[in-house]
Amino acid sequence: MTATPHERRTRACQERLRALDAAAVICSPGANLQYLTGVDETPSERQFLCVVSADGDPVFSVPELAGTQVDETTWVDDVRVWRDGGEPRAALDEVLADCELGAGRVLLDETMPARFVLDVQRLLGDRAFGLATEALGSLRARKDEAELDALRRAGVVADRVMRGLREDAAALVGRSEAALAREVEHRLADAGGDGVSFEPIVAAGPNGAKPHHAHGDRVIGEGDPVVFDFGTRVDGYPSDTTRTVVLAGDPPTEFETVHGVVREAATAAIDAVEPGVEARAVDRAARDVIEAAGYGEGFVHRTGHGVGLDIHEEPYIASDSETRLEPGMVFSVEPGVYLDGAFGVRIEDLVVVTEAGCERLNDSPRGWSVDG
Amino acid sequence: MTATPHERRTRACQERLRALDAAAVICSPGANLQYLTGVDETPSERQFLCVVSADGDPVFSVPELAGTQVDETTWVDDVRVWRDGGEPRAALDEVLADCELGAGRVLLDETMPARFVLDVQRLLGDRAFGLATEALGSLRARKDEAELDALRRAGVVADRVMRGLREDAAALVGRSEAALAREVEHRLADAGGDGVSFEPIVAAGPNGAKPHHAHGDRVIGEGDPVVFDFGTRVDGYPSDTTRTVVLAGDPPTEFETVHGVVREAATAAIDAVEPGVEARAVDRAARDVIEAAGYGEGFVHRTGHGVGLDIHEEPYIASDSETRLEPGMVFSVEPGVYLDGAFGVRIEDLVVVTEAGCERLNDSPRGWSVDG
Repeated sequence: MTATPHERRTRACQERLRALDAAAVICSPGANLQYLTGVDETPSERQFLCVVSADGDPVFSVPELAGTQVDETTWVDDVRVWRDGGEPRAALDEVLADCELGAGRVLLDETMPARFVLDVQRLLGDRAFGLATEALGSLRARKDEAELDALRRAGVVADRVMRGLREDAAALVGRSEAALAREVEHRLADAGGDGVSFEPIVAAGPNGAKPHHAHGDRVIGEGDPVVFDFGTRVDGYPSDTTRTVVLAGDPPTEFETVHGVVREAATAAIDAVEPGVEARAVDRAARDVIEAAGYGEGFVHRTGHGVGLDIHEEPYIASDSETRLEPGMVFSVEPGVYLDGAFGVRIEDLVVVTEAGCERLNDSPRGWSVDG
Repeated sequence: MTATPHERRTRACQERLRALDAAAVICSPGANLQYLTGVDETPSERQFLCVVSADGDPVFSVPELAGTQVDETTWVDDVRVWRDGGEPRAALDEVLADCELGAGRVLLDETMPARFVLDVQRLLGDRAFGLATEALGSLRARKDEAELDALRRAGVVADRVMRGLREDAAALVGRSEAALAREVEHRLADAGGDGVSFEPIVAAGPNGAKPHHAHGDRVIGEGDPVVFDFGTRVDGYPSDTTRTVVLAGDPPTEFETVHGVVREAATAAIDAVEPGVEARAVDRAARDVIEAAGYGEGFVHRTGHGVGLDIHEEPYIASDSETRLEPGMVFSVEPGVYLDGAFGVRIEDLVVVTEAGCERLNDSPRGWSVDG
């Protein structure tokens, strides 16, 4: 019998565990669990864990009401259940005993909620703990062909919606940010996407200067630069793209200059992407352009983040990241400049590192006017 | 100056901390943080914490790009930021030092991801840790008038949509579960809800027997019992209601009997709700009816869960819960029976404990036929 992709990934993970002298990784619902077992589960307060020891097969301990679905989804044979009102801690204790963990550290899913972390720590006594990303980060960062295919298709859906927003600009002015965010959601679904990969950002005028603002009651007026940042999912994999567009009227003072600087920074960063380069060099390429133009103080975030089952994952494109880029890595390049009280500009594409350089997963126009 | 509701809750939390001899609670993005500070933040990989020591004022340590928004949202004065590429651990170390924590245990937000838990544990050395729910569970369980008002309004929206589904039953047969789930989302928004409080469940025929099934490709046919379980949010507070309805045709063998048993169990459980009663007595009341009818094996979950900023929170209505009900507590009563391969039945209402008994927050018809 041929191993499934999920089983192959688990075996690769176990190899990493042995290389790290780690005893096991313990996953809770989230991207790591999905990557290794195929189980796509929403985190909840009920204990739901999968122990992957360095040798042997993984073991699940899940609530009874999830048991059938997990069984039907995963390649893992040993799926144990506990019933509501029962003792999940005792169930986990048994699983940990049966896994016969070696002496090394136990790596915890970086998203495992404290309510389970403390249980695991109590059961495993004074053992040392680390994070699952040590074993899984570099594996998950290099996408295989099936993953790249899904990421490409998710990009196409997002680009189609971004183009449509420009085309329909006249009809969108006068509506609120929140209404446009909902419009974006509908359009992503209509274009073939599966939900949103994160809450869409539609930030107009001064709201665009808060890189964290999602959307609110502000009505989009003439001359408002609008930061659109959104994505959807296809076969579980996300898109994530940003454009800053003036839907009608003339932009505010300094906006064209800033937009030009950010656009140039994005191009410089993408040009810097190739195998062997450190991630911080890509960040530096964007930051150099922005600092040289005198806007360094306004670029308050890293240049990008890896993208996969998690919308933010390794590799991070930050000023302190020494990760060397490898073919198959996928990440965002999204420099931005934020002028408090005035406006913000961000331009974002996803790229995949290739043998020769990189491939962009987004190709909608980058200009600030509705014509691109 | 009058304290805001959030500050009042924080002071009550600090009183609990002192009573517990605990040094502090540390919150990460989620319901605890929102409850105490008003900050409604999506969890991410960036360190975002708020330290509430037993005395003095809380201190935030957040990513710079969230700083302005946090400042604008919260009553807490001390909001410190760290910049991408900077050292969040060092920032947190400083915050912990400045908070001058007492000697007691530190309570961690039960949803705090392991990536932050391990950082906090490393910085605080061999101190003992517990979960925030010790200090906050009972506070959050008793809703104040503003919270109850939001919960009531969220219930009205969900009930309106549930009624509409019965009215439009003829038009809904022949569509897929997934299509109906999306339809439910749209209707909730149109009726004034803010998004969904969880992924809507539309489980037809045998899929209804998997209590964990959300929705899939199955097309709803004549005679399919359909489990509809959904809710929305109003002012941050959720609704959550379930009905099992046959949209067209005759139900399968045994279905009417099972539906009658579940309905009776729901009534018995709601009748058991009053101040001073243990939560497990409410679970027992539902379970007794179902066991007496010979379906005990098919009731694989607890009878209910508390509802508030979190869709699942204290008090849990489970067979082992000795929590005594108090006025202001809000929870679901949702017995179910699942017959593998055939169908499932679940009926769910939210109730609030009153001085005299309880008030139901849902009043849409409970029957299985489209006429209620």
